[in-house]
This record gives sequence, C-alpha cells and structure tokens, in this order.
Amino acid sequence: MDNVAFSTKMDGVVIIDQTLLPNEERTITLTTIEEMYDAIYKLRVRGAPAIGIFASFCLYVLANKIEADNIDTFISILKKDADYLNSSRPTAVNLSWALSRMLKVAESNKNCNIAEIKQMLYKESVDIKTEDIAMCKAISEHGLSLIKDGDGILTHCNAGPLATSKYGTALGPILLGVERGINFKVFADETRPLLQGARLTSYELYKAGVDVTLICDNMAAMVMKDGKINACFVGCDRVAANGDTANKIGTLGVAILAKHYNIPFYVFGPTSTIDLECKTGNDIKIELRDQQEIKNNLFEKPTAPEGVKCYNPSFDVTDHSLITAIITQKGICRPPYTSSIAALFE
Amino acid sequence: MDNVAFSTKMDGVVIIDQTLLPNEERTITLTTIEEMYDAIYKLRVRGAPAIGIFASFCLYVLANKIEADNIDTFISILKKDADYLNSSRPTAVNLSWALSRMLKVAESNKNCNIAEIKQMLYKESVDIKTEDIAMCKAISEHGLSLIKDGDGILTHCNAGPLATSKYGTALGPILLGVERGINFKVFADETRPLLQGARLTSYELYKAGVDVTLICDNMAAMVMKDGKINACFVGCDRVAANGDTANKIGTLGVAILAKHYNIPFYVFGPTSTIDLECKTGNDIKIELRDQQEIKNNLFEKPTAPEGVKCYNPSFDVTDHSLITAIITQKGICRPPYTSSIAALFE
Repeated sequence: MDNVAFSTKMDGVVIIDQTLLPNEERTITLTTIEEMYDAIYKLRVRGAPAIGIFASFCLYVLANKIEADNIDTFISILKKDADYLNSSRPTAVNLSWALSRMLKVAESNKNCNIAEIKQMLYKESVDIKTEDIAMCKAISEHGLSLIKDGDGILTHCNAGPLATSKYGTALGPILLGVERGINFKVFADETRPLLQGARLTSYELYKAGVDVTLICDNMAAMVMKDGKINACFVGCDRVAANGDTANKIGTLGVAILAKHYNIPFYVFGPTSTIDLECKTGNDIKIELRDQQEIKNNLFEKPTAPEGVKCYNPSFDVTDHSLITAIITQKGICRPPYTSSIAALFE
Repeated sequence: MDNVAFSTKMDGVVIIDQTLLPNEERTITLTTIEEMYDAIYKLRVRGAPAIGIFASFCLYVLANKIEADNIDTFISILKKDADYLNSSRPTAVNLSWALSRMLKVAESNKNCNIAEIKQMLYKESVDIKTEDIAMCKAISEHGLSLIKDGDGILTHCNAGPLATSKYGTALGPILLGVERGINFKVFADETRPLLQGARLTSYELYKAGVDVTLICDNMAAMVMKDGKINACFVGCDRVAANGDTANKIGTLGVAILAKHYNIPFYVFGPTSTIDLECKTGNDIKIELRDQQEIKNNLFEKPTAPEGVKCYNPSFDVTDHSLITAIITQKGICRPPYTSSIAALFE
C-alpha cells in the first residue's frame, strides 16, 4: 500500500491514517487545506520525508483548485497555501524544503500559462516522491555496509517506509537486508508519548518478517548493558551544518547511552533533511506539543491528576559529538561533520 | 490515610489499591494468603519498604489464623506461609528481610506458648512499620542536606510515602523541605510500563503542593541538557555490598545521563534494602514481567500487533560507579562503597 498518493480524480491526497495503526489500516482522502494541515499536525502522516512528499502532493492539489486570471495572483495564492501548510509543524525541515521546491517551480516559470504551471507542479511532486524512493534505497545500501548478519540493532521512533516512501531511512538497511536473507535482531523503543515505535516500527518490521522485540524507552540502557545491541539506527528531522541532529524526543538519551557502552550511533536521512541555515542545533526550533499527549491520549484513564503539568517537547537535539556517522543517499558522513556535510553539497 | 494498616477486627490487612491511583483512592482489605500474594504481585502495594511492612502485617494476620496444637507445627505452617508470600516478587530484598525478621521472632521464642508468640509477631510487625517511619524521616534529613532551595530534581518511579510509610525515601527530602518552606522544582519520569511516576509520584507531590512537572522517561536527557536538573533522586529495591543498585527499570539510564551531564545521582533507601549476600549487582535476580504490561495494560487499544514480542524486565542494576552517594537512615555512604556500606553494619 502506498503511503502518500493522489486520489483517482486528482482532487485529494490519499494517506494511511497512521494514528490508527496498528489496529486499523485505514486510508483517508484529504481534499481541503484545513484537512491537510490537520493531517500533519495530528500526525496522521508523519516522518520527515513523508511529510515533505505529502506537502508537495497537497500543494499540487491545492494549485489545481486555484481560480486565478493571472500568474501573479495564482502564485500569491499558492504561496499563501504553502505558508499555511508549512506552519503545521516547525521541526522537520523536509516540510519547508518540499514546499519551497514546489513554489520555485511556479516562480521560475512565470512565462508559462497557469495550466502549464499546474502540470509542472504535478511533475515536481511526483519527482519528489520518486527521488525519495531512490534516496531511501541508496541510504539503505550505505547503511547495510555498516552491519553484519545477526547484529542487534536498537531503533527509536519510526524511520521506516511509513515515514518515507519505501524502505525508509533508519529501517531501510534492515528491510533491504531481509530481502537479501541477512537477518538482524531489532529492539524497537516504543517511543512515548505517541508510541510510533510500538505502533509503526514494530508493526512494519513484524510484517516484513524481521525479528523485532518491543521495549519501553527506559529499557534501552539495560539491553545495551546486556550486550544485545551492536548499533543504534535513528532517523532525523533536521540536521544542522555541524552535524547536530534534531530527531524524535528520546534520541539524545539513546545517543548518550550508546556512547557510554561504546556502541556506534548512526543517523539516517536524505540530504534534504540537512539545513545549512542552521549552524548548530541551537538554531533548530523545537516543537512543544499538548500536555494531554502525555497524560491522557491513548490511555483508558488519565495517568496523572488533572492539575499536574507536563512538559512535552516533540524532539530533542543530539550533539554531533555523540554521532558516529550520518548516512545520506550520497554517502556516509563522518566527523568532523562541518566539512563532511559541506562536501555533500559541493 | 495510612498506606498499610490492620483491619479493625485484625483479621486482614488494609491497603490503598495503588493500581487504581490517581483516579480512585480505594482501600481494600486482604484476608486470605492468596489475596495477599496477589496484592504484591499485581502491585496493589509496591515500593520495597512498603512491601516489607505489608508482608509483616500479613504474616501476623496469617499467624493468628493458624490452628496448631504445638509450637513446631505452628512454626512450620508460619514458615510455609512466609515462603509463599516471599515468592510473589524476587527483586526487592525488604520482602524477604521483613518475613525473616518475623520468622526469627517465632523461632527464637519456642519456649513461649502460641498465644504469646502471636502477640510478639504483632509487636514485631508494628515495630517494622514504626522503624520505617523513623528511618524515612532520618533519610529525608540526610537527603535535605544535599540540596538547596530552588533546585531542580529529577526522580524516577515512586519512592514516596506510598512506597514506604511516611515521607518516603527519595521523595522524603522534598516533602520534608516543603514542610519547612524549602521548595524544589521536581521533574517526575512517568516510568513505563506501569507509570508509577505519573500515577503515584506526580499525585503525591501535587497533593503536597510541590512544583512537579511530569515527563516521559525519554525526556530526561533533554531536561538535563537544558540545565533544569541539579540532582537525581531515586529509591532502591536491593543494594549489593559494592553499591550496585537494583531499582525500577530505567534507573540505570537516568544514572548514565546524569553522569554525562555531571549531575549528582543519589540513591535513597533504608539499610534493610542493602543485601550483603549479594557481592555485586550480578547476584541480584531481576524480575521479568508479562509482555502485556508493555503493549496492552492501561491503554485503550493494543499498541503493537499481537505477534510482536516484548521484553519486560521490571528492574535494572545501576553500577556503583554511576552513583554519587547512597543515603540511608544511618548516614550518607560515598565511594568506595564496599567500605562505606560495610561500616553501616559495624
């Protein structure tokens, strides 16, 4: 099943509602900009690359609905739509990256008519997805070179097919390995508060026939101490020029534990996740989410008294000094990251 | 409300059912040995010191129900009851410590009649509780000397009044401080899978007027990185002769993070939690619990597909090298622990 697709009539974007997994595999079609914004904000679609693909598909559908007499009006409405979608979540750079790429197509073709530009936007959105599939495959190949048959791998959150297009980033080497008869023992952090590790990663790996064991986030130290982990694989939502990496909350803790136990800690993502505008992790804006995600959502009953306050950052930033390597579709970056990352863009 | 008490007719033990907190404050009365075992196993009563008190109260109630003609039969039945209760959970040493202490009273008074021994058992169980209150107070005083007004304190699981008798161990200094107008900013790890940090710690601290913020376990690294934490306070279920400490799963991870950020990591417990029979943490038996606690209990829907396996250790062992000090009622032990702990028992 495709993660992100156009509806048959091309008037909406079809996604698997990831909030319902693993109990229900339901596809939903989003036709209005409010529904699209909501789908990102509520994590019906999530994972940095998948959000980028989704946003570009959405912008094409929205472009198609714009009734404008001239190019400038068309572009100004398109830009407003893009800005609105872009405000849905702040941390993953792929969202703004994909929307900028779409807008650039329109802005640099003002000599064409609106119908032609719409066609170009369609092609661009499909390209973004096609390129993502190729990128994930390349990332998976590079990642597979870092591990060997039988290795124990710890992963946090979900950076598999659901978070991307195919294979995924951090889960890519594992899924590619399985296709080739190479097997790993994966430990999946459940990833509180929204349990993407339980709901999505364990689901994806189990379906693919991977040996996966689900643990609570706070058990990662013990499985490392017990010698069960040979490498940690995580995705990323925004990587700064110096290698500091924003990813799902809890990633920083995993990296510190891995360092303590001398276990390599690998970050996986396409180069579109690297934001050279951010010099360091301090420049990355961290999304704070609703307190109810911690003490209410998903549970039968509230887990704490109503008056108790919660702190709910959706991401944390892992210092580059804790990262063994960053694996992109263009190759494996190793420290010092400022130069190895810069070399990717030369 | 008392944590552990005798029923009015002395034919049962009354506890607050901690599995129902914070949504319901219900007391239950346990009269049969099966109910008592079940209350420990199902965590209706939990926290190493509270389990010890509860077990001693239970053994008195059970002793009272023994109909035996002679001392030897009486003691043999009592011993069987104690063994059964002791098999409910393996990690917390206070359970076997309290039961052994009760048995010793019976065994060393074989010259008395059964009615007299029953009276002695009553006194011993009340002593265990009274001593615990005094120990918690002393531990709290020692702990309070380690922190100052306004400090940020991270705690994991629950080592408050519900886990003990009054004040608690790790939460003792905070609650004693509040009584004296000294205020702290406490961050409580929710403590998956059974959420004792959310359900019990945030509840106890909030009720006492403490500034408490609930976080998911995987957010501890970020609050430490952000400079919000001056000290980590945790309880313990069994401490080895070399200072290695078994406590709720996730404690090891907190200790490693604290070391990374140069934050002192303090373990709190009465000397009854120290088990000199265990030379190191390798000698401590770790309880493995039901997989459903991770992917089913507490949630509205299963969090992972049914076929996905889980690993659910209830405790981990923190290496003594990660512990800044161990705070007991007799004083503060610092490294090297083998000698500072031995000195407690001289």
